[in-house]
Amino acid sequence: MRAFKVTAEYDGSRFKGWQVQINQRTVQGDIEKALSTLMQSPVKIHASGRTDSGVHANGQVFHMRLSTDLTILALYNGLNALLASDIAILRIESAPLSFDARRAAKRKTYDYRFYLSGISRPFLEPYALRLRAGCDLKKMQDASVRFIGTHDFKAYQATGSTATSTIRTIHSVTWHTHEDYVTMRVTGNGFLYHMVRNMVGVLLYIGRRKCLPESIDQSFEHRSRALLPPTAPAHGLYLKSVDYDEEIV
Amino acid sequence: MRAFKVTAEYDGSRFKGWQVQINQRTVQGDIEKALSTLMQSPVKIHASGRTDSGVHANGQVFHMRLSTDLTILALYNGLNALLASDIAILRIESAPLSFDARRAAKRKTYDYRFYLSGISRPFLEPYALRLRAGCDLKKMQDASVRFIGTHDFKAYQATGSTATSTIRTIHSVTWHTHEDYVTMRVTGNGFLYHMVRNMVGVLLYIGRRKCLPESIDQSFEHRSRALLPPTAPAHGLYLKSVDYDEEIV
Repeated sequence: MRAFKVTAEYDGSRFKGWQVQINQRTVQGDIEKALSTLMQSPVKIHASGRTDSGVHANGQVFHMRLSTDLTILALYNGLNALLASDIAILRIESAPLSFDARRAAKRKTYDYRFYLSGISRPFLEPYALRLRAGCDLKKMQDASVRFIGTHDFKAYQATGSTATSTIRTIHSVTWHTHEDYVTMRVTGNGFLYHMVRNMVGVLLYIGRRKCLPESIDQSFEHRSRALLPPTAPAHGLYLKSVDYDEEIV
Repeated sequence: MRAFKVTAEYDGSRFKGWQVQINQRTVQGDIEKALSTLMQSPVKIHASGRTDSGVHANGQVFHMRLSTDLTILALYNGLNALLASDIAILRIESAPLSFDARRAAKRKTYDYRFYLSGISRPFLEPYALRLRAGCDLKKMQDASVRFIGTHDFKAYQATGSTATSTIRTIHSVTWHTHEDYVTMRVTGNGFLYHMVRNMVGVLLYIGRRKCLPESIDQSFEHRSRALLPPTAPAHGLYLKSVDYDEEIV
């Protein structure tokens, strides 16, 4: 038995998220099917975390354990040949049998992409959230640094989630303007379910002057989802990368 | 009655081309439906030329004649609000009643996009043709200048087409490397049906050393589609812009 750390990229548009579901196309489902065909026996994979329906990934990481003599290059070529064009396997690395893509993850980075336009733009719309003229991007950018640090993010967790602790540390929030897109990049030690999209939801209300920047600081105190604006759409969100300690992998 | 020159952008992926067809989603069909809703009576539009199933456009131009008191801004907002997110109206301008988007077109520019990768990449694949390692891009670029000038492009016209003349002038062929994409940009006084995709088909064979650069010069003499390589796929092609004489519009 050998273990592998695998990095994958996918366009989330046509998937019902990462996790296998009956009668739905999912990223995990597609990859497990391809792997099972290649191995000629059922294979399970285990991600660093699920991504929701419509969420994209440039660097999702999962682990798998296989009984195979195939080289890593043969696995890489075989898998990519079997997968549809909206999923790609970017990297396969040998890992210790104890490697767990979720438990060993030290930091995650998410991107949330925006574009500024009075009208919907065909080549941008599936990959970013449109900001209309009434939304003050500068206000959003200024307010976003309030997320940095160690806080109780309970108000940013989807209702019904049952994480043991809702304390998380955001290491950085940076903004990048690039061609047609404005991207917010958030790195943290972990993220609750819907956390980035709920952070963006608050920033959008701040940009539209529907709430004050101080509401971010207050949210760490009141801890109430019901007091915060709605969750931002999935299609602007990208799981950019998952970081591990070098010595583990 | 007022006439308008309209510039539109679309992602061709989910359309069966420009031209209206029964029971198929087409760009012309979608725009005419939106216009007819807005005007509350049937409206026809007339493009600079058709684009095929799967072909994209950043600057398709069409004309329309409307009996309306709506301002151009109201038309622009109304149309964009009614259209799906994979079509956008970029510009509406007043035009003389005699303006004909096809007949008045002086030059057209097409882009054909490539990306270089050993594997299919989810965010690039719908918008560019993948070139594998075996394809020599430099050879393709060097050979492409052979298209410049006035030539008989009969060999580049789809079989069954019935253009009166197959002589066309290519003003320029330029190459642009930009982020993940390599783009070939071709400007000419007009293009036969499938002409750009057949030009790319030849360049791909030249890149793969399956034919010589001289076969381009020979093709202007033998004028035979059957002697040339297959048509390149639609999904790398973009109608970039259509140029008119300033005084006409």
